[in-house]
Amino acid sequence: MMKIKKRPLYLVTDALNYSETAFLKRIDAACQGGVDLVQLREKELTSLQYFQRAYAVKQITDKYQVPLLIDDRLDIAQAVKAAGVHLGQKDIPVEVARRILGPDAIIGATAKTLKQARLAAEEGADYLGVGAIFPTTTHVETVRTSVDTLRTIKQAVNIPVYAIGGLNAANVDAVQPAKVDGVAVVSAIMKARDPLTAAQQLRQQIISVTQ
Amino acid sequence: MMKIKKRPLYLVTDALNYSETAFLKRIDAACQGGVDLVQLREKELTSLQYFQRAYAVKQITDKYQVPLLIDDRLDIAQAVKAAGVHLGQKDIPVEVARRILGPDAIIGATAKTLKQARLAAEEGADYLGVGAIFPTTTHVETVRTSVDTLRTIKQAVNIPVYAIGGLNAANVDAVQPAKVDGVAVVSAIMKARDPLTAAQQLRQQIISVTQ
Repeated sequence: MMKIKKRPLYLVTDALNYSETAFLKRIDAACQGGVDLVQLREKELTSLQYFQRAYAVKQITDKYQVPLLIDDRLDIAQAVKAAGVHLGQKDIPVEVARRILGPDAIIGATAKTLKQARLAAEEGADYLGVGAIFPTTTHVETVRTSVDTLRTIKQAVNIPVYAIGGLNAANVDAVQPAKVDGVAVVSAIMKARDPLTAAQQLRQQIISVTQ
Repeated sequence: MMKIKKRPLYLVTDALNYSETAFLKRIDAACQGGVDLVQLREKELTSLQYFQRAYAVKQITDKYQVPLLIDDRLDIAQAVKAAGVHLGQKDIPVEVARRILGPDAIIGATAKTLKQARLAAEEGADYLGVGAIFPTTTHVETVRTSVDTLRTIKQAVNIPVYAIGGLNAANVDAVQPAKVDGVAVVSAIMKARDPLTAAQQLRQQIISVTQ
């Protein structure tokens, strides 16, 4: 159940318009800056491209001993021996994924409501990503989740809960009342001028608001 | 190596604009008509939708004891316990898929050239789909393969070879010189007025041109 312990800063990637090299350099810098968990999230790639990119990212996360999760695709996760997957509400159900990936894989799930959170936890999710707390530019379709709901979810489940959605240095303090286990960010690191420093500073800030 | 024996008529699905019910009825009718192998091919669905549709199709193919293959997605194949996958040139490589799915899974590969065919066979593909022999309306991007190349490939590999691409009752005789093991069709069944009869007649015709 508690595979993810004390991993406050969770980076969810977005390749944006970076070149492959620039993208990988950012992941490397972010890991060096202290990112505790990385999720590779790709929506537009062919399976071959997703596999190749995941393989390249895995070399980096391995170097820093940071667990790598793959968004949506169990097969890509298996192909690169990633630590696990992150599953949204439009992906393969958590219990089906658990049957395929086995007990050791990390399986995370997106939950926007208490009902979704309880179901994911019952089905065997290892953590929840809850949001979007603030509007985000990296997801086209954004359903908002309030800090109140975030707190309710945190109190209702016994697996780690991550706040996600538009969170950055300027607004992350807002999640403090929910006493979540960590914060997941995309733009705050992927668009930062200096991703290493951004990760370092965000991590300190997140530790202070999650303790 | 020879997991696929004497399965001349291979149906590759296209849901077109059918309702879910109408689509499934067509698969059922096609299986009843004698289809020997079914590949579920979806490009636009979410993972959850692909999984749900694959699950529904699996109930039908099981009823007729027809092996079901899933296009591209190893995880969907595992989730519904399909017989295997079909991999295009933009999908996870055959050798990686073999490592994940194990020796018993059927892994098919698309080959448009002799080079691709040899590589796929070396990597452990169980059969090849070679084409497009004729122009097709179900693939946006169509690279043509001649009957000459089809014959060269068939002579070069020791796994079953299927001709694919715009093949139907009116033109399937054209592949006869290549002495392939079977023919894969999409529109000839998915768009047929009567898919059961279409499958029956096509199968007889394919047997006569592949022997």
